[in-house]
Amino acid sequence: MTPDQLVEIELIKQLKYKYMRCLDQKRWTEMADVFTADATAAYSGGKYSYEGRDAILEFLSSSMGADTFHSSHHVHHPEIQLTSESTATGIWALQDVVIDLKWEITIRGAAFYNDEYAKQDGVWRICHTGYRRLYEEMESRKDKPELKLTASWWQSDGQSDINV
Amino acid sequence: MTPDQLVEIELIKQLKYKYMRCLDQKRWTEMADVFTADATAAYSGGKYSYEGRDAILEFLSSSMGADTFHSSHHVHHPEIQLTSESTATGIWALQDVVIDLKWEITIRGAAFYNDEYAKQDGVWRICHTGYRRLYEEMESRKDKPELKLTASWWQSDGQSDINV
Amino acid sequence: MTPDQLVEIELIKQLKYKYMRCLDQKRWTEMADVFTADATAAYSGGKYSYEGRDAILEFLSSSMGADTFHSSHHVHHPEIQLTSESTATGIWALQDVVIDLKWEITIRGAAFYNDEYAKQDGVWRICHTGYRRLYEEMESRKDKPELKLTASWWQSDGQSDINV
Repeated sequence: MTPDQLVEIELIKQLKYKYMRCLDQKRWTEMADVFTADATAAYSGGKYSYEGRDAILEFLSSSMGADTFHSSHHVHHPEIQLTSESTATGIWALQDVVIDLKWEITIRGAAFYNDEYAKQDGVWRICHTGYRRLYEEMESRKDKPELKLTASWWQSDGQSDINV
Repeated sequence: MTPDQLVEIELIKQLKYKYMRCLDQKRWTEMADVFTADATAAYSGGKYSYEGRDAILEFLSSSMGADTFHSSHHVHHPEIQLTSESTATGIWALQDVVIDLKWEITIRGAAFYNDEYAKQDGVWRICHTGYRRLYEEMESRKDKPELKLTASWWQSDGQSDINV
Repeated sequence: MTPDQLVEIELIKQLKYKYMRCLDQKRWTEMADVFTADATAAYSGGKYSYEGRDAILEFLSSSMGADTFHSSHHVHHPEIQLTSESTATGIWALQDVVIDLKWEITIRGAAFYNDEYAKQDGVWRICHTGYRRLYEEMESRKDKPELKLTASWWQSDGQSDINV
């Protein structure tokens, strides 16, 4: 690994971070830029698989677009390998939380991503992404008076109701 | 991005990591060093805003100083941009947990930070920090015999009560 | 810090990420490669201490090997210091979750690692690892009809039961 290669690896990490940020902030237009046009996805061990950037974006924005849907998708442990001047692979660990106020559920999980990246016109993009779950659990939020949502990006301008 | 710039980015990441470590370990004296004297903070969507290093430290140490207050503040997904030789900006994803034994509550949340950094006398420091919540939830720990704290930095020397 | 040193730091990070991946995926044979033969470990504030790679692997594989045992061990905030051409130290923040279906418990915790690394024959390895808990809590999963495991690496090929 050379310092110049490390720069490429950092650019790939920033690409992934932009993708995750656009996902949790519901920035679908900005997100389009992170995928190649022919990108493929295989989420949840392949259960949710899509071909092409448009199909991926349609799935994500339709399943996660509601402002009652809160999520944090955090990726860790990047093992990025440059496989040529314009291709790379990446393994990442995922930890995610979903709080859905409409369905009154919390989902918590962990997974490993296997990604592929391509550099096109000087810009790194995701050409394949997919993850396999280590575990996932779902919990009902109904009948839990002791549990309260105290802040929301969409419903409280990101401010907390809690007074320190 | 050049290899030399990547070194500056790594130094800024280590600065942020030192800040988070000092926060969760309650190292208030060591923490002072990470801020510029005129640093500003806007936590929780600006609800908790402070001007000057001393005011920030007073807020953090008074609200999080008790040894019944356990927290983990983890930051992810650094998108650091060098804006000059001595200034930079950073976006980070936050995931935090608070377990407060005095008030018998758990708080879990996620947010995005927008930071500004300045290099003074060869050392990077935080000159502005602030975050906006994606979500935050609070849960009472009362009347939960099935939930037990099994280790504490302050009350069990960081050792677990659980026997493997 | 020089660009060449940053490459060494990245290699140490990838070493740690490989260790965590082998842990959560139960890849014990691949994991052996990340330790020096005389590596030592002091988990949970020293409560679980081992001398030698074989003893560490025996502890990890026997306590975490069952496919009813699900875990995510995520490490953050690397403060890596190169102390010579072939030695380094590292501070990391840990966040971990265990879901054990046999004992019907969830364990959640946070900690700080203090690691030591050595470069042998051109490869970085862990020669000491250990962590001290910020907090740890255990919760029974019994009598919780509202809580369900919906995916497992081992029991559902990493696919979720939830239909979007």
